[in-house]
Amino acid sequence: MKAVCLLSGGLDSCVTAAMAKKEGYELYALTVNYGQRNRREISSAKRVAAALGAREHKVIDADLRVFGQSALTDDIEVPEEAAPGIPPTYVPARNTIFLSFALAYAEAVDADAIFIGVNAVDYSGYPDCRPEFIRAFQRVAILGTKRGVDGNPIRIKTPVIDMSKEQIVARGAELGAPLEHTWSCYREGETACGRCASCRLRHRGFEKAGVTDPLPYES
Amino acid sequence: MKAVCLLSGGLDSCVTAAMAKKEGYELYALTVNYGQRNRREISSAKRVAAALGAREHKVIDADLRVFGQSALTDDIEVPEEAAPGIPPTYVPARNTIFLSFALAYAEAVDADAIFIGVNAVDYSGYPDCRPEFIRAFQRVAILGTKRGVDGNPIRIKTPVIDMSKEQIVARGAELGAPLEHTWSCYREGETACGRCASCRLRHRGFEKAGVTDPLPYES
Repeated sequence: MKAVCLLSGGLDSCVTAAMAKKEGYELYALTVNYGQRNRREISSAKRVAAALGAREHKVIDADLRVFGQSALTDDIEVPEEAAPGIPPTYVPARNTIFLSFALAYAEAVDADAIFIGVNAVDYSGYPDCRPEFIRAFQRVAILGTKRGVDGNPIRIKTPVIDMSKEQIVARGAELGAPLEHTWSCYREGETACGRCASCRLRHRGFEKAGVTDPLPYES
Repeated sequence: MKAVCLLSGGLDSCVTAAMAKKEGYELYALTVNYGQRNRREISSAKRVAAALGAREHKVIDADLRVFGQSALTDDIEVPEEAAPGIPPTYVPARNTIFLSFALAYAEAVDADAIFIGVNAVDYSGYPDCRPEFIRAFQRVAILGTKRGVDGNPIRIKTPVIDMSKEQIVARGAELGAPLEHTWSCYREGETACGRCASCRLRHRGFEKAGVTDPLPYES
């Protein structure tokens, strides 16, 4: 069994890939370099893929800055507090693009599944993290590919979609996922800032799970 | 009204964009440079966008050769005759990727529609040219975007999906679409080869429509 695993360099995709490995899949890791400001995400993804023993790790470049419109790719201020609604860090159609690339890769290597670490609990502001979005994309995967036409569709798997950050950390620790190589901070540096919405979320997750975060933080 | 129009450099997308313009849309043209062997497609798309008076034309690079697997991006022999089933020129998940980029662009410029020149009649071998695939992607566009959540989804429009090549040529001629800038040949050169499956299809379309093909052909 082969699985394409989307790796962002973050915690959720790392634990998701570790779960795929645990299920017996051979991992074909995929990272999309979409022009994110944080280059550290790519190097983290590489380390995670290597630590998980992925068969391959492809990094595909698709510079979404061409289209503009997000704090993660433009110079909009990154929020320190999560607010209700769709956050300014939303990148238009990001997960649709990620899943499309994963689908192409899965067809090319004849993979049975695609694993994506979307999470509807802590980031419910992103429309493309919801189960109904994933179900819609599953239809696209069935109807838009050779394998789907042949009656053996590629399955989209989202094992952490309903988990809290605490549960994700606990599951990752249990599986020995390489959490030390992940990076969650919106900013770049030797140490995580500890203050942005993403750092806070991560920090609370480790704390509640009773796991020590292996990442160095500012002060 | 704004529309993102995918332009491949070919006939179908040119006529599709001309139909969008006729409907009153302001055109935001988009071409994906996916590492196709035929660089002429990109320059043709640029000329078509300019001739149609597009407000913008974005070319996004996403080298799908990273994943391998197609006569249009690899060095597999291009067929001279169409055969039943999924042809070797099929690029994994190509239209899914194209539509994903179009969706990101549409969100960024707040476009009301995406026009794509898929055709289910002459190329029924491609799974991602079928109406059921387009309907599945429409659900993704509704559920995976901010605009969809707000109840004002981006519409996926495929005005030539059920048209024969003859009808597409006739409609293009009627609208004054810049057919002289389009390129259909699988190969690259000063003149079209006239022999590949794509040239033959185009040629028959012009012939049946009683329109003179403005492209130069070999002998």
